[in-house]
Amino acid sequence: MNVLIVYAHPEPKSFNGAMKDLAIETLTAAGHDVVVSDLYAMGFNPVAGPDDFVGEASNPEFFSLATEQTKACEDGTIAPDIAAEMEKLKRADLVIFQFPVWWFGLPAILKGWADRVFARGFAYMPGKKYDTGMFNGKRAMVVTTTGTSADTYAPDGIDGDILTVLWPVHNGLLRYSGFEVLKPFVAYMPGRVGADGRKTYLDSYKKRLGELEATPRLFFHPREDYGTDERLKPGVLARSGVQRNV
Amino acid sequence: MNVLIVYAHPEPKSFNGAMKDLAIETLTAAGHDVVVSDLYAMGFNPVAGPDDFVGEASNPEFFSLATEQTKACEDGTIAPDIAAEMEKLKRADLVIFQFPVWWFGLPAILKGWADRVFARGFAYMPGKKYDTGMFNGKRAMVVTTTGTSADTYAPDGIDGDILTVLWPVHNGLLRYSGFEVLKPFVAYMPGRVGADGRKTYLDSYKKRLGELEATPRLFFHPREDYGTDERLKPGVLARSGVQRNV
Repeated sequence: MNVLIVYAHPEPKSFNGAMKDLAIETLTAAGHDVVVSDLYAMGFNPVAGPDDFVGEASNPEFFSLATEQTKACEDGTIAPDIAAEMEKLKRADLVIFQFPVWWFGLPAILKGWADRVFARGFAYMPGKKYDTGMFNGKRAMVVTTTGTSADTYAPDGIDGDILTVLWPVHNGLLRYSGFEVLKPFVAYMPGRVGADGRKTYLDSYKKRLGELEATPRLFFHPREDYGTDERLKPGVLARSGVQRNV
Repeated sequence: MNVLIVYAHPEPKSFNGAMKDLAIETLTAAGHDVVVSDLYAMGFNPVAGPDDFVGEASNPEFFSLATEQTKACEDGTIAPDIAAEMEKLKRADLVIFQFPVWWFGLPAILKGWADRVFARGFAYMPGKKYDTGMFNGKRAMVVTTTGTSADTYAPDGIDGDILTVLWPVHNGLLRYSGFEVLKPFVAYMPGRVGADGRKTYLDSYKKRLGELEATPRLFFHPREDYGTDERLKPGVLARSGVQRNV
C-alpha cells in the first residue's frame, strides 16, 4: 500500500510528531511505502491565490480560484509546489492527516494545503463528487490531538461531538472528493495525561495501524438516498429516524 | 459602534469584495466606525509558529504554541502583525467575518488569522471560555458565500446543514471566546444566480446590516446546562429533546 502522511505541527518533538514517526515506522515495517509531507518543515505556503499558477491567467481581469485551477489542471500549469503534492496524492492508497485540532479545525498550513492541492479539475469536477468523487478507491484517516478532554467532545459535550467538529473535514474535504473515510484516531489532551497516558495512546495507535482493514468506515448516505435536489428523500429520512444527515 | 471586518478573498472585484464594500458604506453611513483587515491585501501570514514572538522563548527546546502565546501576551512580546490585529479586536463591538466557504471552512489565510490572533492569554484562558469567555460583550457575525445551492446545505442536504458546516467557527472559535453570535448571512452560489440574484443578495445584506439588533442570536446551551464534566446534565438533555448539542 502507498501511504501519504500529511503532517502539520511546528514542533518535531511534539506528540503529533511522535504519532507521525510511529506511523512511518509501523507501516514501513509492515511492508507499505510511506511518504510524508511535513508541511512546517517544507515551509509550505497555504495561501491560495494567483501565484498557484505558472501559465497565463484564464481571466487576467478577474481572479477566480476555481476557474484558474481548472485551466491549470488541464494545461499542466499548476505551480510546482502544488503539483508535487498532487503527485503524492495520485500514488497514495491511504492518506493519513496528522495534526492538532487548533480552533476546532485544521491548522492553517494544512487547511491551505487542502485549498491549493484539492484543486478543481484535480480533486473535484462537475458530476464528480461523493460516491463518484475523483479519489474513489482511496482511503483517508484523520489522526489528531486535542487540548481538552474526551468528555468535552462527547455528543453532549460543551465543545461539541468530535464527529461534528470534524464533519467539514470528513464529509466536506474527504468524502466529497471520493475518499472512503476511516474512523478517526483521536488522542485527547496528550499534554495532560502524563507519560503513561501518552504511551497508552501510542500503543493503541500502533494497534490501529495494524488493523486498518478492520477499522470502521464513517457512514455517509449513498447518492441514491438523495433526490435530484440533493436532499435526502423523505422515505430515507423517515427510515433513518434522524433529523439531519450527520 | 466599532466594527471590525475581517475579510479574506484574493479578488477585490469578487462578490465577497462587494459585500465587504457594502458593509463599509452602510455601517459608516449609519454612524459606526468601521475598520477592515483585508488579509490578502495585507499579505497576512497565516502560519502560527516560533516567529509569532519577539521575546525569548519560554522553552527554547520545545515549541508549544499555547505556552509561548501565554508568555508573550503577559510580556507584551507578541509579533507586531498579530498585536495590531489584537488592538483592532479589543476596540471592536462587532466583528464581521467575510469570506467564501472553501472546502467547507475558512480560507487558510483567515483560519491562520484565528490561529495566531486568538492566542491563549488573549482570546482564552483557564476558566475563561463560553459564557465567561474573554470577548464577552462583543458580537460576531459570519457573512459568507458558497459554491453550491441552499438545498445542498439544508439540514438534509448532501453537503450538510450550513450550521453544522459552520459549527466549528460559530461554537468553536466565536462562542468559545465569549462572543454573542449572530445568525450568519449566507449568499449561496453568487456566481450562478445572475446579476439580479446578486443584487437581491446585496439588498438583503444591506437590510440585515440595518437591523443587527433584531437579528437572531444562535442558541448555545448556557454553562448551567452542563455538569462539572462539561457534558449536558441529563435533565437538560431530556427537556431539550435533542440527541446532541448542535
